[in-house]
Amino acid sequence: MTIVSVKQALAGVQAGQAVTVQGWVRTRRDSKAGLSFINLADGSCFAPIQIVAPATLANYESEIKRLSAGCALRASGTLSPSQGQGQAFEIQASAIEVTGFVEDPETYPIQPKAHSMEFLREVAHLRPRTNLIGAVARVRHTAMSAIHRYLGAQGFFWVNTPIITTSDAEGAGDMFRVSTLDLANLPRTPGGGIDFGKDFFGKEAFLTVSGQLNVEAYCLALSKVYTFGPTFRAENSNTARHLAEFWMIEPEIAFADLDADATLAEGFLKAIFQAVLDERMDDLAFFAERVEPSVIRRIESFVREPFARLDYSEAIRILEKAPRKFEFPVAWGIDLQTEHERYLAEEHVGRPVVVMNYPEAIKAFYMRLNDDGRTVAAMDVLAPGIGEIIGGSQREERLDYLDRRMLQFKLDPAHYQWYRDLRRYGTVPHAGFGLGFERLLVYLCGLGNIRDAIPYPRTPGSATF
Amino acid sequence: MTIVSVKQALAGVQAGQAVTVQGWVRTRRDSKAGLSFINLADGSCFAPIQIVAPATLANYESEIKRLSAGCALRASGTLSPSQGQGQAFEIQASAIEVTGFVEDPETYPIQPKAHSMEFLREVAHLRPRTNLIGAVARVRHTAMSAIHRYLGAQGFFWVNTPIITTSDAEGAGDMFRVSTLDLANLPRTPGGGIDFGKDFFGKEAFLTVSGQLNVEAYCLALSKVYTFGPTFRAENSNTARHLAEFWMIEPEIAFADLDADATLAEGFLKAIFQAVLDERMDDLAFFAERVEPSVIRRIESFVREPFARLDYSEAIRILEKAPRKFEFPVAWGIDLQTEHERYLAEEHVGRPVVVMNYPEAIKAFYMRLNDDGRTVAAMDVLAPGIGEIIGGSQREERLDYLDRRMLQFKLDPAHYQWYRDLRRYGTVPHAGFGLGFERLLVYLCGLGNIRDAIPYPRTPGSATF
Repeated sequence: MTIVSVKQALAGVQAGQAVTVQGWVRTRRDSKAGLSFINLADGSCFAPIQIVAPATLANYESEIKRLSAGCALRASGTLSPSQGQGQAFEIQASAIEVTGFVEDPETYPIQPKAHSMEFLREVAHLRPRTNLIGAVARVRHTAMSAIHRYLGAQGFFWVNTPIITTSDAEGAGDMFRVSTLDLANLPRTPGGGIDFGKDFFGKEAFLTVSGQLNVEAYCLALSKVYTFGPTFRAENSNTARHLAEFWMIEPEIAFADLDADATLAEGFLKAIFQAVLDERMDDLAFFAERVEPSVIRRIESFVREPFARLDYSEAIRILEKAPRKFEFPVAWGIDLQTEHERYLAEEHVGRPVVVMNYPEAIKAFYMRLNDDGRTVAAMDVLAPGIGEIIGGSQREERLDYLDRRMLQFKLDPAHYQWYRDLRRYGTVPHAGFGLGFERLLVYLCGLGNIRDAIPYPRTPGSATF
Repeated sequence: MTIVSVKQALAGVQAGQAVTVQGWVRTRRDSKAGLSFINLADGSCFAPIQIVAPATLANYESEIKRLSAGCALRASGTLSPSQGQGQAFEIQASAIEVTGFVEDPETYPIQPKAHSMEFLREVAHLRPRTNLIGAVARVRHTAMSAIHRYLGAQGFFWVNTPIITTSDAEGAGDMFRVSTLDLANLPRTPGGGIDFGKDFFGKEAFLTVSGQLNVEAYCLALSKVYTFGPTFRAENSNTARHLAEFWMIEPEIAFADLDADATLAEGFLKAIFQAVLDERMDDLAFFAERVEPSVIRRIESFVREPFARLDYSEAIRILEKAPRKFEFPVAWGIDLQTEHERYLAEEHVGRPVVVMNYPEAIKAFYMRLNDDGRTVAAMDVLAPGIGEIIGGSQREERLDYLDRRMLQFKLDPAHYQWYRDLRRYGTVPHAGFGLGFERLLVYLCGLGNIRDAIPYPRTPGSATF
């Protein structure tokens, strides 16, 4: 018997041949004709495959008729064209081996019905068996794979910047401390402070909030690089829009300006979206039907149309003239709020838009000062239905300008000596951006809560937390 | 002018056309004929490209003759067949723009000479500009990409298990604590203990040592899954063989036994090694010349020959009969030491060998008890030149056996309730393994110290640490 996945079987791989499929029961229906129809899923695609189990199976009465949602089995038989609607192939079973029943089917948490998202977060170890979370997991995989594939094909090298770090990328943001000190018995300095010299790394250490500064050093050697790994923010973890732990992609390109950065961001996003359309239409169809009706339409329009580009100052003029009242007043110098971003993307241009050249006072110290002296070469990619999805900039490659910006932001240049070195030795214009992966996934799947975009949500009531 | 990478230029992409290359100077040599030869690298491949700069360039005297190692420039000109040896193409420059000189070339840390590895770890932000670390970074990228490519092509889904966790995968190993508590002012319980209810997650949290238990839940829904992300061990960080932070790959397959696990491990390793041979021969040639002469030969033989398989009990008999004295005495029941592993792989079978079915007492609680009652379905892949490279097992899918193993290891089943659930609801035989990525990279590159396999070594003297 050839073992095939449900995806292969539904595609007719080995049609007419004897095959074995393996997976978990979604439903079982017994016909009056004395046979049973079992829908079996293995996670390889959205749809289950139908197993036709005749009463002649040796374990038909003893096991097949006891099968309930969640039971695990191996079914062997002929892969045959299906008479039923909605599927091309089914298995005419000649043997079924049950590897695992469900203990007390009445109380099994994953019943064949719709569950609330809140409930599913509490059974995080079982929720990948649901249609919804299974589909999210597959789209997550496809989008992440597409990121590696696209950047690899463009000649980028993946660089793993440190997760545990002794410095903060932006001089801001609440960080998690990483330590092996015994809290019940903290070592003290003569002055009474905590003696971090006794900690694992001999100094204070934290979880990274961004790999950007570190990856810049690799950019100035390998030309095209990116980070893709977990990052951490110790803030706002109990909202539907923020995570304490999330995956971030940060490409960085040498000999590049802000325009090149925007061009990369557009090609990059479109490649991810196209991969999801190409490979996960079955999952998207489910999201469109059950979660967010516009999900396929907006991905298709995202891929089809060129992004608009808009200067920040022009964006402010557009917002000032907008025929609507914003909660946050608009004036040159403000940071754009989600309501502003969505108005620009959804109502003004009607497609993704890159807003460029923001006021220098509201952007990070490493962003390149423009010739006007009051803006920096920063960009945000704003998308309909979500607002900001990517933030990036050309980096300040001139040491004297960088030093002035650091002083302005009250950062100690001595603390950034290695970062300054990159400008002392063979400096080049370079640019990059950051993308929070789960924020993108929420958009791709139409999810309402970002905690459903990660495999294990941190919910206080969760069995796994 | 078409911008091309050095890799493209050396391959003759746009040969005969006007192109621009961008990168950093490796060397400059002035000829008596009144022109200069500049070797320019951009990190896209091992070799630099030669730029021929005639004295007629406007900035020849003012800038070109000042160029030293590390300076950054853009060179435009015709991509022409090279007269020189060792390269097919060179650039006949019509213009060179210097974007960054090297401040004080005499003290620039990366001189065009061999540096000690110790010194390079102290300039971690500049060392990717060296031949050696640039090559390591490229091989790292290729091997990591090959992992995603191979597993993706086999139908595996990448699952991101939590980095911050409240449980320990193996009930062992020193972990890093993650906390936002103010150490100078720790909250206390009425009994005087630390009140972790006030910590960020409302309980004690640590950095993960393995995603295996978490990914098993996804395996029992999606059938073929893997983790690939950073893991942490707060031990032994100052050796040449251990890292506190390293990347680990953990594939997990449903409906699989230990044989299937060993077969996956073999196909997986060979795919990685083959990708490095196919894509990074230029870098491997450098390692073979400067670092470890056998590096290409051993990768080629790794790929060419089938792995041997050996029962642990048989391995013990072989070691007992070995015509040599081991530092650690051999007897049934011991855990194999590196000297034993290397004897088996290098001297006894002369190629990679999978040792299977270890004594249950020395292996983790989640490994499946064999019918003999005294061994578990565990395996280690041992390779010549390094010893253990992969460790894996079939997981105990029977709840009653798992419970007995947990009690034997003094683990509290209540703490693993969600993990027990996976055996209560549709359990299936499943198996997986773990591979520490940097350990593999050390082997691929022939490195002597694992800290050179990560982008940023944590060296006390390092400018970036």
